Amino acid sequence: MKATMLYGPRDVRFEQRPDPQIEKPTDAIIRIAAACVCGSDLWPYRGISPIKQPTTMGHEYCGIVEEVGSAVKSVKRGQFVIGSFAFSDNTCPNCQHGYQSGCMNGGFVNAAQAPFLRLEQANGTLVATPEIPSADLLPSLLTISDVLGTGWFAADAANVKSGSTVAVVGDGAVGLLGVLSAKQMGAERIIAMSRHEARQKLAREFGATDIVTERGDEGVERIMELTKGVGADSVLECVGTQESMMQAIHATRVGGYVGYVGVPHGVTLKGEELFRQHVHLMGGPAPVRRYLPDLIDLVWKGKINPGKVFDLTLPLPKVADGYRAMDERTAIKALLLPS
Amino acid sequence: MKATMLYGPRDVRFEQRPDPQIEKPTDAIIRIAAACVCGSDLWPYRGISPIKQPTTMGHEYCGIVEEVGSAVKSVKRGQFVIGSFAFSDNTCPNCQHGYQSGCMNGGFVNAAQAPFLRLEQANGTLVATPEIPSADLLPSLLTISDVLGTGWFAADAANVKSGSTVAVVGDGAVGLLGVLSAKQMGAERIIAMSRHEARQKLAREFGATDIVTERGDEGVERIMELTKGVGADSVLECVGTQESMMQAIHATRVGGYVGYVGVPHGVTLKGEELFRQHVHLMGGPAPVRRYLPDLIDLVWKGKINPGKVFDLTLPLPKVADGYRAMDERTAIKALLLPS
Repeated sequence: MKATMLYGPRDVRFEQRPDPQIEKPTDAIIRIAAACVCGSDLWPYRGISPIKQPTTMGHEYCGIVEEVGSAVKSVKRGQFVIGSFAFSDNTCPNCQHGYQSGCMNGGFVNAAQAPFLRLEQANGTLVATPEIPSADLLPSLLTISDVLGTGWFAADAANVKSGSTVAVVGDGAVGLLGVLSAKQMGAERIIAMSRHEARQKLAREFGATDIVTERGDEGVERIMELTKGVGADSVLECVGTQESMMQAIHATRVGGYVGYVGVPHGVTLKGEELFRQHVHLMGGPAPVRRYLPDLIDLVWKGKINPGKVFDLTLPLPKVADGYRAMDERTAIKALLLPS
Repeated sequence: MKATMLYGPRDVRFEQRPDPQIEKPTDAIIRIAAACVCGSDLWPYRGISPIKQPTTMGHEYCGIVEEVGSAVKSVKRGQFVIGSFAFSDNTCPNCQHGYQSGCMNGGFVNAAQAPFLRLEQANGTLVATPEIPSADLLPSLLTISDVLGTGWFAADAANVKSGSTVAVVGDGAVGLLGVLSAKQMGAERIIAMSRHEARQKLAREFGATDIVTERGDEGVERIMELTKGVGADSVLECVGTQESMMQAIHATRVGGYVGYVGVPHGVTLKGEELFRQHVHLMGGPAPVRRYLPDLIDLVWKGKINPGKVFDLTLPLPKVADGYRAMDERTAIKALLLPS
């Protein structure tokens, strides 16, 4: 097959690779129906997280089970499945506590921008849809694998509840789906921080009640004004920089919650300041597996349409164009369809 | 009156001071029945948090209301009261959210090692006991003001629940009362980290099921062994150093909770590491006011005896000896009784 490889900064190639094979009894091979480029793929693409050697790419996926190892019982050939970007046995203590992205026998998918994917720990990672979905459902189902699951975790980690006042730092696809998630969880007020018109529009469509265009300290001041000097109950940090993290912490009310899902790059927190701010912090790789059944249900019943974050659709061989568009912010998120 | 002043590192004096007077209608004057030296008093005492000028000291107190300002309605002259180390109006949004130590109109008590104390925001800060307590109840009632309230908050912030596995970093009075608090909240297993025999003994008396004498990475390894490689559900950080904070974070299971109440000194947390550790963090000055009624009730009914942390009792004029004993760790905590 031909698949995606990253060779170095801004050097994405679609080239010949070995067809994946079952290697362990717990593996499954998935024929990818849709994949995409993740905001986190841009860290190595931009050279900020350097790679040492050419690497396969992609961790968001859904598709048809092509083959399973002898120990795989939870899904079978021919089913349409969605899995988390983190594979997990779903039985270890960490999984049982609901943190499958910290599975003791798990790891991270890294070869999904391809026509076929070998997935480890298929039993604990994959969830089948009720039937084979129609093509129009594919984008929304695909988001569950990471970008929606991560936005959902941000809102969950930030303790969003019915009636909450929520602020979302970051207007990438995760931030936008954080808005959608907060809305689903019953937030009364959702302040999206964005200075891009198209993203503001989508944020409003997903449930944002207010838009703040200012950043950093000015952004915090605006949120304080909007909340009568109190701060937001819940803030979703969906970027991962020092500025965005401090913006999130300072925009949170005393005793409030920050859910951070932007992969931190060079972020340092001072204990004294955290102590003074008096906020709950929770973040990390989203335990998407925990949310898979409920999120599939919401999409299947048409209650949410997270697939709207894809504003560029490309045939898989054009994957490099997807990276470029996201890097240049001409696209929010690029959907990749194997032919 | 004569009262306690800190002039500089290890220079505590008991000297003539003006008698406190009602200054605002919301003030109360309290005749102190018992006060004490706090572990946090040792930061300026040791010169680690330098002071710019001689300062009054003491923020843990209980006693009889001597006089109230015209706006004080919740307590009256002659009642025995306990208040938090942080004064608060108990009506602002932060107070209503249960974080009275972050009151928008509040502040911190800093003159309680004295026979009389002027307390601001008396309505929102003080809670009266059912009657005037007998002398033997004084030590336990006094602890509620800070050291027990803070240990309780550590356990609460660390989400201790029935059946939890808890680890406590720090064997000072706060850590020991964190053990007692975790026990009250139903923890099944409580691992106290201590290398001092007297403190280990008290920890066991308060409910510790295991003692770990190792520190730093070795201490973390021991906790991992004791929890089958999973880590503790809840870890109480009651020191405030870089080592103790990292020990707490690393000893927590994936998805678990760290409650940190040791005032951080030079603590720096890396975002990347927090993201990987995947734990909930919450800490800051304890909102003791939230817990006052329940903790008074527990002490009043004899269900807990937190006053055992006082292993040195001094007449107030000997306050400097109390600082010295705690600095040299010959005492866990020094009780001060005005004559």
